Amino acid sequence: MKTDIDRLMKEANLDALLVLGPSAHNAPMTYFTDLAHLSELFLLKMSGRKAIHFHKPMEREEAAATGLETKDIFVDYDYPALLEQANRDSNQAQALLLEKVLAEYKIHGRIGISGKIAFGNWLRTIDILRRKLPNVEILGENRLRSVITQARVTKDDSEIERIRAMGRITTAVVGDVAGYLTSHSVKDGYLVNREGEQLTIGNVKRKINLWLAMRGAENPKGSIFAVGRDAGIPHSTGTASDPIPVGQTIVFDIYPCEAGGGYFYDFTRTWCLDHAPDDVLQIYEDVLEVYETVYSAIRPHKPCRDYQIQTCELFEAKGHPTILSNPLITDGYVHSLAHGIGLDVHEAPSFYSKDDDVLLPGSVITVEPGLYYPDRGMGVRIEDTAWMRPDGVLETLVEFPKDIVLKMQRA
Amino acid sequence: MKTDIDRLMKEANLDALLVLGPSAHNAPMTYFTDLAHLSELFLLKMSGRKAIHFHKPMEREEAAATGLETKDIFVDYDYPALLEQANRDSNQAQALLLEKVLAEYKIHGRIGISGKIAFGNWLRTIDILRRKLPNVEILGENRLRSVITQARVTKDDSEIERIRAMGRITTAVVGDVAGYLTSHSVKDGYLVNREGEQLTIGNVKRKINLWLAMRGAENPKGSIFAVGRDAGIPHSTGTASDPIPVGQTIVFDIYPCEAGGGYFYDFTRTWCLDHAPDDVLQIYEDVLEVYETVYSAIRPHKPCRDYQIQTCELFEAKGHPTILSNPLITDGYVHSLAHGIGLDVHEAPSFYSKDDDVLLPGSVITVEPGLYYPDRGMGVRIEDTAWMRPDGVLETLVEFPKDIVLKMQRA
Repeated sequence: MKTDIDRLMKEANLDALLVLGPSAHNAPMTYFTDLAHLSELFLLKMSGRKAIHFHKPMEREEAAATGLETKDIFVDYDYPALLEQANRDSNQAQALLLEKVLAEYKIHGRIGISGKIAFGNWLRTIDILRRKLPNVEILGENRLRSVITQARVTKDDSEIERIRAMGRITTAVVGDVAGYLTSHSVKDGYLVNREGEQLTIGNVKRKINLWLAMRGAENPKGSIFAVGRDAGIPHSTGTASDPIPVGQTIVFDIYPCEAGGGYFYDFTRTWCLDHAPDDVLQIYEDVLEVYETVYSAIRPHKPCRDYQIQTCELFEAKGHPTILSNPLITDGYVHSLAHGIGLDVHEAPSFYSKDDDVLLPGSVITVEPGLYYPDRGMGVRIEDTAWMRPDGVLETLVEFPKDIVLKMQRA
Repeated sequence: MKTDIDRLMKEANLDALLVLGPSAHNAPMTYFTDLAHLSELFLLKMSGRKAIHFHKPMEREEAAATGLETKDIFVDYDYPALLEQANRDSNQAQALLLEKVLAEYKIHGRIGISGKIAFGNWLRTIDILRRKLPNVEILGENRLRSVITQARVTKDDSEIERIRAMGRITTAVVGDVAGYLTSHSVKDGYLVNREGEQLTIGNVKRKINLWLAMRGAENPKGSIFAVGRDAGIPHSTGTASDPIPVGQTIVFDIYPCEAGGGYFYDFTRTWCLDHAPDDVLQIYEDVLEVYETVYSAIRPHKPCRDYQIQTCELFEAKGHPTILSNPLITDGYVHSLAHGIGLDVHEAPSFYSKDDDVLLPGSVITVEPGLYYPDRGMGVRIEDTAWMRPDGVLETLVEFPKDIVLKMQRA
């Protein structure tokens, strides 16, 4: 939680955090600013004091509305003069500005840097700053280990409620999609509309975006709506021009966020319209059983990898290949069981079988076992987002039926 | 254009470009991959040969669909073994992977790096790589000067048509919003719906997102719908809970992109519902006159700053303060005339009065003069997106009326 940042900074021996970039779609910055409209610049967090946001004059009111301490780089640092001094080289001017700021706040030691931003431009600035200030250490931190990432692992009540609200939107849209699909007729094994035209994956995805927008969510990363062979490849998003068959697996994975770039939800159901062939039902039942077994085993303060390994062992006992035995396989169980979720759709903790993350109370994770057989034209994944509550109970934030067969309304 | 990349690399004395990050909402990567669903990793471009994209096994089919040469970091480089060798430190493993790749392609010289990505994590990787390979120069490039940025300045016909298509969507939604606003009734100077409830800016913004989604666009950066005093602060986005008055300026600035993170359009109109006070009409006419004068003066191969300076001089001649005389002002004309637009909403060329960019045929720019008087509760901006055609004509990509007064339908 945010209240952990000072302690985590001390443990990492960091004197300051420097966060770069806009306030939206940039988790480390959004964590401080919340959903604001700050297009650029940076934030400085020193131990034991409130973060300071540095903005351009045009964004003065948006900056003030964050409740952070704010500085105007024109009014407070005369940035135009710095740009002249730097012969109009914006990286040189940024470095001059940062030099002034670090001197003002007497920061001489170790600075952890983060923010989703154009890498090359800021690398040039930081390289200049490093040459200017050889005694200041400006450190990149590992994605899963940085102070802000670690603070973000545990969520406070307001964060839980925002993620849950996104879950309500997400599952409502999933329900809308189920109703939409099953309201169609079937011709030659494919869904058709009243005019007899085939419904395509592109049509469905357009509806998904529309219904998410109607409910106030944003879908910056798209969704997976993958049929048959595509369903057997976990990250295939589905081919827009493909028609939608009955009796084949459809993996529908949807991960929208709050409009403006806030908290995410992540959710997957696998459907067969009208009916499911026996071999599909078999892998669906295997996935569901593993889901339930592992879900009910998950406890706080345990290594996350234990559950990935357990999942692999359960699938292997049922005769499915897994990446535990061979990381190069493309059939069977080929990904991680879970990941943390919050301001990023994938964040700490990691459930990768070689990582050391421990599952902390207060974290929000997905649970998403799956089986993939692309050459047999099928894949099944079931995914919910769940909160490891402070009392040690893993609570699915929003419940939704896991049935694989969706009956057609006109059948 | 893309065909300029090899020449630009040579001019910058770069042996390779290394582009980091996902394919969506990451202009330098999207420029090579187009709208794909590649969640991470990197791309390598060497002079005189096709770019190579490096992907994870789950994204093999999405990578192949880009038409680029592709490499699977598991199959082709045994990344799991690299991770073991790196004691599971993912930055060390990334550096080992990059070391292998650079050796394979015999890249020993200067590498330009770009991509919108978590800065801290990749800084750690690059710092490790620099220590491993002290003779390889890994260079950050200035935002406006990088090879890929410079290539992107000029657009080919297919890019123009994609931006124009976004313009058609954008202006259609602006038309929808105008119709929606003017269909309301007025009570005590504010818009009300049939139930007599005040319409709020939040309601309108929700509709904007919805109508954009309906037409297949995405709105990752939100929109500005700012009334009265907020309209007088160029980047104020408007307060969601505020009601919508008649007879006051509304600055409506909308900058959506293709769904999935592609090309942007940027467009602003200023409206007064029902009627406009005389002082508003006066600044509107000043802005419109400057818009038309400057627009018709814009020629290719000239320094962009000339038009910013001309705009300032025209406004000053009409008695308005501008940032040419004092960069710290908040009244009058307080921003740049224009900016390039494409896969980023703001890209090269820069029209900042101190920058040296030249306006090249084939570039797409905004034209957006404005006047702001927050303490008088008003602001006016008019913005179109325009193409500097190869024949030297500046063509507004989609025309739309510039009238300030929107008559209410029931008045």
